[in-house]
Amino acid sequence: MTDLRIGIVGVGAMGADHAERVARRTAGARLVAVSDPDTVRAEALATALPGDVRMIADPLELIADGEVDAVILASPGFAHAEQLFACLEHGKPVLCEKPLTMDAASALRVVEAEHKVGRSLIQVGFMRRFDPEYAALKELLASGELGRTLMLHNVHRNKSVAPTFRSEMIVRDSLVHEVDVARWLFDDEITRITVHAPKPTSLVADGVLDPQLAVFELANGAIADVEVFVNFQVGYEVRCEAVAERGSATIGLGSGVLTRAAGQWGGAMPADFRVRFERAYDIEVQRWVDAAVRGEIDGPSAWDGYAAAAVCEAGIESLTTGRPVDVDLADKRQILG
Amino acid sequence: MTDLRIGIVGVGAMGADHAERVARRTAGARLVAVSDPDTVRAEALATALPGDVRMIADPLELIADGEVDAVILASPGFAHAEQLFACLEHGKPVLCEKPLTMDAASALRVVEAEHKVGRSLIQVGFMRRFDPEYAALKELLASGELGRTLMLHNVHRNKSVAPTFRSEMIVRDSLVHEVDVARWLFDDEITRITVHAPKPTSLVADGVLDPQLAVFELANGAIADVEVFVNFQVGYEVRCEAVAERGSATIGLGSGVLTRAAGQWGGAMPADFRVRFERAYDIEVQRWVDAAVRGEIDGPSAWDGYAAAAVCEAGIESLTTGRPVDVDLADKRQILG
Amino acid sequence: MTDLRIGIVGVGAMGADHAERVARRTAGARLVAVSDPDTVRAEALATALPGDVRMIADPLELIADGEVDAVILASPGFAHAEQLFACLEHGKPVLCEKPLTMDAASALRVVEAEHKVGRSLIQVGFMRRFDPEYAALKELLASGELGRTLMLHNVHRNKSVAPTFRSEMIVRDSLVHEVDVARWLFDDEITRITVHAPKPTSLVADGVLDPQLAVFELANGAIADVEVFVNFQVGYEVRCEAVAERGSATIGLGSGVLTRAAGQWGGAMPADFRVRFERAYDIEVQRWVDAAVRGEIDGPSAWDGYAAAAVCEAGIESLTTGRPVDVDLADKRQILG
Amino acid sequence: MTDLRIGIVGVGAMGADHAERVARRTAGARLVAVSDPDTVRAEALATALPGDVRMIADPLELIADGEVDAVILASPGFAHAEQLFACLEHGKPVLCEKPLTMDAASALRVVEAEHKVGRSLIQVGFMRRFDPEYAALKELLASGELGRTLMLHNVHRNKSVAPTFRSEMIVRDSLVHEVDVARWLFDDEITRITVHAPKPTSLVADGVLDPQLAVFELANGAIADVEVFVNFQVGYEVRCEAVAERGSATIGLGSGVLTRAAGQWGGAMPADFRVRFERAYDIEVQRWVDAAVRGEIDGPSAWDGYAAAAVCEAGIESLTTGRPVDVDLADKRQILG
Repeated sequence: MTDLRIGIVGVGAMGADHAERVARRTAGARLVAVSDPDTVRAEALATALPGDVRMIADPLELIADGEVDAVILASPGFAHAEQLFACLEHGKPVLCEKPLTMDAASALRVVEAEHKVGRSLIQVGFMRRFDPEYAALKELLASGELGRTLMLHNVHRNKSVAPTFRSEMIVRDSLVHEVDVARWLFDDEITRITVHAPKPTSLVADGVLDPQLAVFELANGAIADVEVFVNFQVGYEVRCEAVAERGSATIGLGSGVLTRAAGQWGGAMPADFRVRFERAYDIEVQRWVDAAVRGEIDGPSAWDGYAAAAVCEAGIESLTTGRPVDVDLADKRQILG
Repeated sequence: MTDLRIGIVGVGAMGADHAERVARRTAGARLVAVSDPDTVRAEALATALPGDVRMIADPLELIADGEVDAVILASPGFAHAEQLFACLEHGKPVLCEKPLTMDAASALRVVEAEHKVGRSLIQVGFMRRFDPEYAALKELLASGELGRTLMLHNVHRNKSVAPTFRSEMIVRDSLVHEVDVARWLFDDEITRITVHAPKPTSLVADGVLDPQLAVFELANGAIADVEVFVNFQVGYEVRCEAVAERGSATIGLGSGVLTRAAGQWGGAMPADFRVRFERAYDIEVQRWVDAAVRGEIDGPSAWDGYAAAAVCEAGIESLTTGRPVDVDLADKRQILG
Repeated sequence: MTDLRIGIVGVGAMGADHAERVARRTAGARLVAVSDPDTVRAEALATALPGDVRMIADPLELIADGEVDAVILASPGFAHAEQLFACLEHGKPVLCEKPLTMDAASALRVVEAEHKVGRSLIQVGFMRRFDPEYAALKELLASGELGRTLMLHNVHRNKSVAPTFRSEMIVRDSLVHEVDVARWLFDDEITRITVHAPKPTSLVADGVLDPQLAVFELANGAIADVEVFVNFQVGYEVRCEAVAERGSATIGLGSGVLTRAAGQWGGAMPADFRVRFERAYDIEVQRWVDAAVRGEIDGPSAWDGYAAAAVCEAGIESLTTGRPVDVDLADKRQILG
Repeated sequence: MTDLRIGIVGVGAMGADHAERVARRTAGARLVAVSDPDTVRAEALATALPGDVRMIADPLELIADGEVDAVILASPGFAHAEQLFACLEHGKPVLCEKPLTMDAASALRVVEAEHKVGRSLIQVGFMRRFDPEYAALKELLASGELGRTLMLHNVHRNKSVAPTFRSEMIVRDSLVHEVDVARWLFDDEITRITVHAPKPTSLVADGVLDPQLAVFELANGAIADVEVFVNFQVGYEVRCEAVAERGSATIGLGSGVLTRAAGQWGGAMPADFRVRFERAYDIEVQRWVDAAVRGEIDGPSAWDGYAAAAVCEAGIESLTTGRPVDVDLADKRQILG
């Protein structure tokens, strides 16, 4: 089994984040190259990350490079079309941050070009489909347990955005996630859209329509409404409530899938510790591996294991006798110096 | 950079879970060997996982093996002592599932043996320290924002356990996690313990004391009470409420750290999308890598990117005109055949 | 101080509920008369309630009656206009369940007639304005703490309604509450309305449009969207989320006003026990009064007071000595026989 | 039906609150007399409240007064014994704020004296039994749905108390509520109590043990643990979690009874609007009555009813046509001047 060798085009905030992810938290992959117009930034990142990461100034060169098996595009949207065509040309799998391209016409040309290649190479970065909450919601709706889904009520809020973020960008960069969510959850196309603009918040520049309220109508007759508010001031918030014939389900409250069904509101209890602590185990092992490579440990020590054993012994005695029991612990300094 | 080569001793439920984790979700590590008294099970697992994983029947042979850099012990507690000594002897880093050993005396001998080796090789599997909620709680308490921590109220519930799980095991296998949590959060030792046994649930065998209520007294004068209830019937639940001089903080409700402070109850909003969707990005990229190796994609396609672009174009028109706008989408079958 | 003598017109579910309320839970008022086309039902209710309640078959006669100071109209909407004119004629204060009348034209005639009388006699039964959660939300928004209110997202769901409940009634009987809520919270008029009808739930008769999604545009440029779903199957649910320039506030989750503001989600802690237990005190005293009239008590007895004292005495001893203390309680049967 | 004529002894914070309650929010009762050592305060209150309320300086005179049918004792605890004996002597029903008396011995004498009178005259002010959440919890536990109740975990927190509030008062005035809750929920006596004192918060005077952790053992083998923390700084908080054989139920979170049972956490949806808005209706009618007596209205006007009708008419047109519809509203100033 050889690791997939990955090159990343664009190492601004998003691309640098992906670089960390590939280099430090992804199994079966290796970051081998990065590219960015800001070559200083790219070089610094390449140096900082573990492994041999090359800086290749020209993105098309990176895509064409024989040592690069697959590409992540985190470049600005306007650069996507050319880079995607290059990936298709070299037959390289590519994970492209949204938007695919800047308009529908060019996006359709990408679709057609990939179709001509004859195999699926392009994946778009609508990462919400991979969020455990969204995935659980999708599964619940697909199960039919709540009947047919009738409506979605969605909320998408950012704390704030750059003053250059204009009304159209709110649609193209923020609402676009909700477009994908609605299409994916309903497994259907949107046929009609209305975007309402209430009187904007006074905390944006003149002319920027923020917040917005979009209403999607789907081919199957369902409806989704979405608030997009990118200067909410409070924090980042993404919620989705699906309303179905026999109940509703909401995610984004930070507590899994909240359902209202069968006379009850609430959620599911985890069945066992592996569900509850899956992430804790993942982090524990990743950090133990990273520390072991450095010749260290990065977690509870043998002393912690010993002290716990001493307390448990006293606990068993207390359980048996019904009395408080003092814990008999060795003197740490005497043992460990 | 070479991957850390890991061997796992014991591939029951916990060990098999670790094997999956190392083989498929951990960067910088490779699973190279597994050992288990049930060699058929170990062999099957070795074959099922990606990469070359050897089955080595004898755990001590696995530990001694020159191709094994580090060891995870997921064997039964009674086998730990011998295996830990072997790891120390070969100078191998070891992640040992709790309990360290079966009693305080043998645990202390392990501590002393490691001390003699002269470097930290043993980490105990108290994985809660790595749970993001516990870590955030620890950080909040350590910040001093709520003042000195006075008490903990903890709850540890399992849906059910095997009928062979006796009163002492409830202390040694379940309560032990709470022992570590209290020691870790207070950064102090427990000096006294009382374990109360209310009249047991009727859903356990005669003589099993379940639930239990333990009260820990710490050297610094703080107190922690813990309910352990391993036949709760409902599901798995672990909660921890820390009560401090100026507020309280609770985790395990599934919604991050819930605080009561400064006249308010509630929690923090995530600052941005990377906080909220960190896991979604991790899963997206891991699944994209895995699929790319197979020559597939496993996520939103170019068509999904195109359809989103078409809806956004219509949305921008609606925003401008104030009217509903039909989405002009190409015929998918005509384009993709 | 003399009690206000109240007559109720219409004693179906809503009117009977009001009759109970006036007769048993309202200070300074007395129920003196009820009227209903179903005279048997009205008679039975009059007999069942405390005090002297007359049954007066003709509603106009009840309104005109010299012993009736004020009127509650819980008759069907189509009967309201005539009865309201009668109340105005006799100068009687009237609490009229919604809708005021069946259409805007007749409602306007009522407004004009009351104006001619020269004093406010008519109150409409939009009772949400009196709900503590709505009142707290209104107060919060009016305080300006969150900035100007930009949008409302409302949800109004019934478990189910009679099969005779048609699309128009959903607007007139259910949506009408949301109309008042939006007008009241924004203190402004609605200038435009769009009602979307997704493909209906399959659990209604053909032709009934349920659920509906209404979008209100207000004179001040704000927007409110409302889901009305009267056959939700799950239960009754009314929610209102106000989105303002610096935060949002949601009610109807059953936990007061949930805000998202200043980087936090959550709510206010009650300042003292009177806030938390106000209702408990009200109920305690009302039930004590009702029982005292019957020569009984309906709550904790002197024995309960004694037993609590005995436990507290032991508690103080335990606090002082640090040991468990047995409670010394007299033998109840020996004392009370 | 004649109103119960009530006299209140002690009109500090609690007594004044009861005076308001009886005078303004209680059906079938009338406040006729108040007594307080601070006669100026008592006189001012008597004057401020509606109806004819006499100030009677001597509490025993008030109790003996022929126009007083029943008594509420809100005097300090040390005065209770004498006043209770007076109530018994005159055969008057009395609602006595806790504590019944200052110690178990005197409380037992009250019990015996009432027993001699031969009928129940004394009710103790453990008002939590009347809190809708506690009542719902009691009902749930009594139903047996969750099996036998095994444990309670309770929390009782005040924002702060006067510096004169010493350790013993924390037991006698605060913990006493929890004593009653445990006795009432389990319908059993407490046989043993342990009160732990962790190192106190630094925000109390030297020598005050705050917080405290009490453990009650009941005759039936159940256990209750209670945190009492009267200088919590944050606000008032009272919680109770009952742990039973097949699930748990928690109140005091502000969202009704939160259960964990059958694999789910959550609560019940209200069945209909009367459950959800019961309080709103009560308040609406009480305020309408109070305003009607003053010749006013105190709620939505006829204009509000008309405006709602106009919006609904437009809404029905929109539902039929699928288009936005402008609302045709008369000019308010032209109509109402």
